[in-house]
Amino acid sequence: MNTQLLERRYRLLGAGAPLFYNEPVHIVRGEGVWLYDADGKKYLDVYNNVPNVGHCHPHVVEALYKQSQTLNVHNRYLHELVLEYAERLTALHDDPLSMAFIVCTGSEANEIALRMARQATGNQGIICTNCAYHGNTTAVDELATYFHGGTSPSANVKAIPFPESYRPLDGLSGEALAAAYSDKVKQAIDEFEQEGIGCAGMLFCTLFSGEGLPDVPPGYMEQAMEHVRAAGGLYIADEVQAGFARSGEKMWGYRLSGVTPDIVTMGKPMGNGHPVAGVVARADLVNGFREQVMYFNTFGGNPVQCAVGMAVLDVIEQENLQENALVVGEYIRDGLRALQSEHELIGDVRGRGLFIGVELVTDREAKTPATAQAKTIVNAMKEKGVLISNIGMYDNVLKMRPPLPFSKDNADLLLSVLEDVLAPGISE
Amino acid sequence: MNTQLLERRYRLLGAGAPLFYNEPVHIVRGEGVWLYDADGKKYLDVYNNVPNVGHCHPHVVEALYKQSQTLNVHNRYLHELVLEYAERLTALHDDPLSMAFIVCTGSEANEIALRMARQATGNQGIICTNCAYHGNTTAVDELATYFHGGTSPSANVKAIPFPESYRPLDGLSGEALAAAYSDKVKQAIDEFEQEGIGCAGMLFCTLFSGEGLPDVPPGYMEQAMEHVRAAGGLYIADEVQAGFARSGEKMWGYRLSGVTPDIVTMGKPMGNGHPVAGVVARADLVNGFREQVMYFNTFGGNPVQCAVGMAVLDVIEQENLQENALVVGEYIRDGLRALQSEHELIGDVRGRGLFIGVELVTDREAKTPATAQAKTIVNAMKEKGVLISNIGMYDNVLKMRPPLPFSKDNADLLLSVLEDVLAPGISE
Repeated sequence: MNTQLLERRYRLLGAGAPLFYNEPVHIVRGEGVWLYDADGKKYLDVYNNVPNVGHCHPHVVEALYKQSQTLNVHNRYLHELVLEYAERLTALHDDPLSMAFIVCTGSEANEIALRMARQATGNQGIICTNCAYHGNTTAVDELATYFHGGTSPSANVKAIPFPESYRPLDGLSGEALAAAYSDKVKQAIDEFEQEGIGCAGMLFCTLFSGEGLPDVPPGYMEQAMEHVRAAGGLYIADEVQAGFARSGEKMWGYRLSGVTPDIVTMGKPMGNGHPVAGVVARADLVNGFREQVMYFNTFGGNPVQCAVGMAVLDVIEQENLQENALVVGEYIRDGLRALQSEHELIGDVRGRGLFIGVELVTDREAKTPATAQAKTIVNAMKEKGVLISNIGMYDNVLKMRPPLPFSKDNADLLLSVLEDVLAPGISE
Repeated sequence: MNTQLLERRYRLLGAGAPLFYNEPVHIVRGEGVWLYDADGKKYLDVYNNVPNVGHCHPHVVEALYKQSQTLNVHNRYLHELVLEYAERLTALHDDPLSMAFIVCTGSEANEIALRMARQATGNQGIICTNCAYHGNTTAVDELATYFHGGTSPSANVKAIPFPESYRPLDGLSGEALAAAYSDKVKQAIDEFEQEGIGCAGMLFCTLFSGEGLPDVPPGYMEQAMEHVRAAGGLYIADEVQAGFARSGEKMWGYRLSGVTPDIVTMGKPMGNGHPVAGVVARADLVNGFREQVMYFNTFGGNPVQCAVGMAVLDVIEQENLQENALVVGEYIRDGLRALQSEHELIGDVRGRGLFIGVELVTDREAKTPATAQAKTIVNAMKEKGVLISNIGMYDNVLKMRPPLPFSKDNADLLLSVLEDVLAPGISE
């Protein structure tokens, strides 16, 4: 471990600045699905979705370079690129989502969504799950229930149990389970109304990423949104992790449930590492917001962001990355299920496309979370040159979310390293 | 005017998405202090501080390109560039400001400052001026008194009259004026304390940019901060506009008053257009925050941001841009004062370095704001190929804030175009 770098980091960024792994890696170069450390050691990147089309993809880097040489200025002057990009983005979404904001970070995107939903409805209450993360600003942090013990520090935010089939509410299944979870939404709405706060909307990550990628009981989203709409609230779909073809089946996670959002927020993979994020929403919501609020974002929608954002869309299309996510994602899950038959520790294999969760348990009947074991595996795989992480309510879900040009060969390496690590048995 | 582009913009971004000028310009290229529109018309850029070292500066663009080809990944892996940049940034600040956050936007920087000040002090109250703007998120928007009629929508923020010598409080001057303005700070603190809110700190733009670049009565900041510190509050200096050599005299606006802040926020010019922003603060504040709050910023502190940020610092140093700002800024103000002797409309010429305010009045005695005339001049100068804007409580202050490599020749053009526009007399 590079103690000198670590000490400098503590001194300059604070000791609490988050780092991955017990012995952090010192990465100096990236290419495709590979990262390289200062000693030349090669790591298969099964964690990073920000370099969505692969680290340092030349098509994206060249678009960035070309536009940076030409013009990089705010969008209070007219420019075609912000319109081309907004046109292309909105065309990729469900019909009513016809207007866009281009901003810099997922937090900024969720800030706009919250401000817009609260202004449009006249209500303050937002429903999120009890294991959520949506960004780092004051208002968005009120939804970071993952870091606040499953609840919100604000009276204006209520956390409900996230929908899942692995540890089902009250041991229910099927339609009864979907109804039980959506009743929790109704209950939160009733409380908001009794408290005079009202319901502005429901904000979910459409793959429930931080929650550990649960299998959602069919019908849940429809029923939950029926309650929210009846109370005048909106559906804000957070695609910051789920979007841009990650699920393989669809370009956007919200399409897996078939419920069209009123507002969609996007971020991380949007610029392949360049700070780009955005919001698409119904025209009446955007116009209503724009009438009341002077919203301006200095770097948001500048020509460089837009050129980069479009280059990312080019690569997703030209390299068939959505299909690749579908095919290779399913291939990995098949391999994981084969491992599951050999290893009691693997309680559940889940996810969509190239966003995969492997829930580890010490007892399959009791579903006892194998939190320490998950941490051990994440660190052991890093030693063997494969980068993953862990998430979920108990931090016991292995999180695999590689750049989309991840091949079956890459998948074989991932699976064989996981098998190696599991082979001797994993204990605390 | 390009009505087709405008219609597309209304349709895609909303009719209220802000644009400059009665007939917006359609800019397609930038170089140094020049912008070019789609018809090849050349504009002298006397507005944009984001391209601080000049539009598309090759040293910055090459640093961006090189690092984008090598590695662009979040900073939960170890990397040298974020440390080098944090080292270089903190070395440029007053001693106690030894730790840094690198984030993406000024709003994000001010979000951290507010969260950190409130957490460290245990108080919620923030003091800002009555004509302030610090960003676009929910919590930071509570300080956007410019857009909220001079007050804050939140009980946790109190707006005080900004300090100025042109329209002095109660007609006072000298020490009495500084005392009268700082008494307003004391009064806000007393109210916060009576309300059980307490004072977390005072957050100012150190050049009072949105306020119209007032001449601050000497001694004001010392006295104001004495009150704030006595109440346990902190000084948050917003250098998003004032920083990075803009004032000519100093690298940071806060050094003009000699009062060292506890937290400094930076943004706009930091990456010459690339989305980079940051916070430097006392180590105890950062460590205290890091202990309590899991703060992570996906794009913040990535190697590309840091390479770009360092390239901007290189150019400021290598091209002596701070000195240039001082010399050329004073040259412009001299020229403006000469125009003032000919034109009754020019009530006051102010500012520091290459951040210049020209307050227009229809009556010098009554100091009646010439708001309509300011708008007319801004638009007329645009027609003649010079881009400026207007700010201040009455929007009657011409705002001149060009890229720092602005030459005396550029200044002569600016002055002659302003003279041309003023010559026939400006009426509503």
